[in-house]
Amino acid sequence: MSKINIKDLARQLNLSISTVSRALRDSYEISAETKEKVFALAKALNYQPNPNASGLRAQKTKTIAVVIPEMVNDFFSLVIGGIEKVTHQKGYHILMYFTHGDHELEVSFINMLSNGRVDGVLLSVSGENNQNSHIEELNRNGVPLVFFDRVCETADNVKVTSDNYESSITATRHLINAGCKKIAYLQLPKNISIGKKRMQGYLDALSRYAPQQTPLVVECASDYDDAFMTIKKMLTAHRPDGVFASVEKLAVICYRVCEKVQLTIPDQVKVISFSNLQTASLLNPSLTTITQPAFDIGETAARELFKQIDGKHKKERRENVILKSLLIERKSTAVRS
Amino acid sequence: MSKINIKDLARQLNLSISTVSRALRDSYEISAETKEKVFALAKALNYQPNPNASGLRAQKTKTIAVVIPEMVNDFFSLVIGGIEKVTHQKGYHILMYFTHGDHELEVSFINMLSNGRVDGVLLSVSGENNQNSHIEELNRNGVPLVFFDRVCETADNVKVTSDNYESSITATRHLINAGCKKIAYLQLPKNISIGKKRMQGYLDALSRYAPQQTPLVVECASDYDDAFMTIKKMLTAHRPDGVFASVEKLAVICYRVCEKVQLTIPDQVKVISFSNLQTASLLNPSLTTITQPAFDIGETAARELFKQIDGKHKKERRENVILKSLLIERKSTAVRS
Repeated sequence: MSKINIKDLARQLNLSISTVSRALRDSYEISAETKEKVFALAKALNYQPNPNASGLRAQKTKTIAVVIPEMVNDFFSLVIGGIEKVTHQKGYHILMYFTHGDHELEVSFINMLSNGRVDGVLLSVSGENNQNSHIEELNRNGVPLVFFDRVCETADNVKVTSDNYESSITATRHLINAGCKKIAYLQLPKNISIGKKRMQGYLDALSRYAPQQTPLVVECASDYDDAFMTIKKMLTAHRPDGVFASVEKLAVICYRVCEKVQLTIPDQVKVISFSNLQTASLLNPSLTTITQPAFDIGETAARELFKQIDGKHKKERRENVILKSLLIERKSTAVRS
Repeated sequence: MSKINIKDLARQLNLSISTVSRALRDSYEISAETKEKVFALAKALNYQPNPNASGLRAQKTKTIAVVIPEMVNDFFSLVIGGIEKVTHQKGYHILMYFTHGDHELEVSFINMLSNGRVDGVLLSVSGENNQNSHIEELNRNGVPLVFFDRVCETADNVKVTSDNYESSITATRHLINAGCKKIAYLQLPKNISIGKKRMQGYLDALSRYAPQQTPLVVECASDYDDAFMTIKKMLTAHRPDGVFASVEKLAVICYRVCEKVQLTIPDQVKVISFSNLQTASLLNPSLTTITQPAFDIGETAARELFKQIDGKHKKERRENVILKSLLIERKSTAVRS
């Protein structure tokens, strides 16, 4: 069977091509009865509109772009699940782009998306460096954009995040309440707002609930081996009795270091981390986590984007959405009985 | 700055629109010198071709589709990493589709992709049920297609897989050599070739290396709670001393059941699983795995697809690729010293 085109449909229905075309576009000029006949035959013959041609006419690509830093990460996998739920319902396609945390790559993706390839963009930024002209250009070109998780604070777009500052307060208090007298905070060097909020939560919780403690902020490189060495040095030199990992990756490295230097979790050092790791409860020991509502973040960001694509939302009425994370207590912060 | 179009470029360069257009398409009719001028200005002004219009002309969408069963799975995340490496080098875009293991959904995605939306398709099937007319139609329409991991055996397309049968033999022998006298095999109900090969490896290894053992094949539902109950019943009723999970998800459930019914891994029951879990070494106890070369599978599948898209490959010379998996021995199959 060769491809069915609009001409074939018109011939078989004894209608003009323009009538069939307008029927397929659900035009008000065509009667319901005719539309029904056209839809039925189109379905029966598996007619697929040429996406390029119909994109030109309708000025809709029925496609959104999702730009994220990385793939191998349960958080982003879950977010994409939430996004996909909405896009599937809307009959939309998803173009995926991975920045690998590289700002230059993010800029080139966004520039390329400025010119009509997609109807909207969901973006979790690679980092912030005040070079946001690519965001501004996307906005000037009228391409709807919603940020999620890692947002660009200075941009005037809807942002869907979780309560990073409050969760960080909760996590730090949890370690203080578990008896930790020296709490280290592990972070990545990326200068992103989410990282600043999490660190501020740690610092404020210490000064509020354990003012006698000196903060111990440890910046770890993105590279696995470098981060391993930094954490190893820190653990042996400072001997903290509590570690708060701002990202899952650093908690995993911390577990490996503890095994290496034979520090027992939770007896010698308690560990808590922001994490959506599906196997957190099966780790040795099971990991206490601040778990973000990842699927919900994806779903909400996609719904916000479609409000703009569908034109239901006046710009003035756009509001940021902050979703709540959950502290899940497990053995890595248990108090010895 | 408003969008730069081809007219703007032509005006600024004092060239005709058709010359600029042909220069941008790297036409042989245009001199190298002119092309260079056009490219330089296009770059300077961040000119982005209208993807719909240029798609119509060039008959290339510069886009491939990746159709996979699920997202939250370290195997597929790594595969996508490999695919993305190649597509990024080629300057291509990735459309992502998730079937959630639903054959109907796979059929509707593939039908929709039959009509020129993409230059090629990478597919890991949802299941097999001899209803492969959607694959046949994609082939008839001349859309390049490469299968990876979960393949459709009957289709005449390149397939990139790992050595599932041989790895299953290796895994089963590993349990036999560790002293297991009663080895259960956990599988999902999906009727896919990869599952059949893995089970056959288990059966053949038993009859070859432990003929006194009666095979114990346990089919687990896809639903988490159902699978949990099935494994719990099996472990308490049959008391196997070895469990071979054909997919990671079932190994994770098996760990949870063992915790629940207080069976000690590896002393009372040894566990091995096909898995790309990044935290396998941190589980309690660390999990012995058959680890597939996931990134490599993605990269190879993408390269095979581009051979076809670029027309470098005559159909007769297409060959399937089988990559080697690795047995990584950890504590879950350790012999008590």
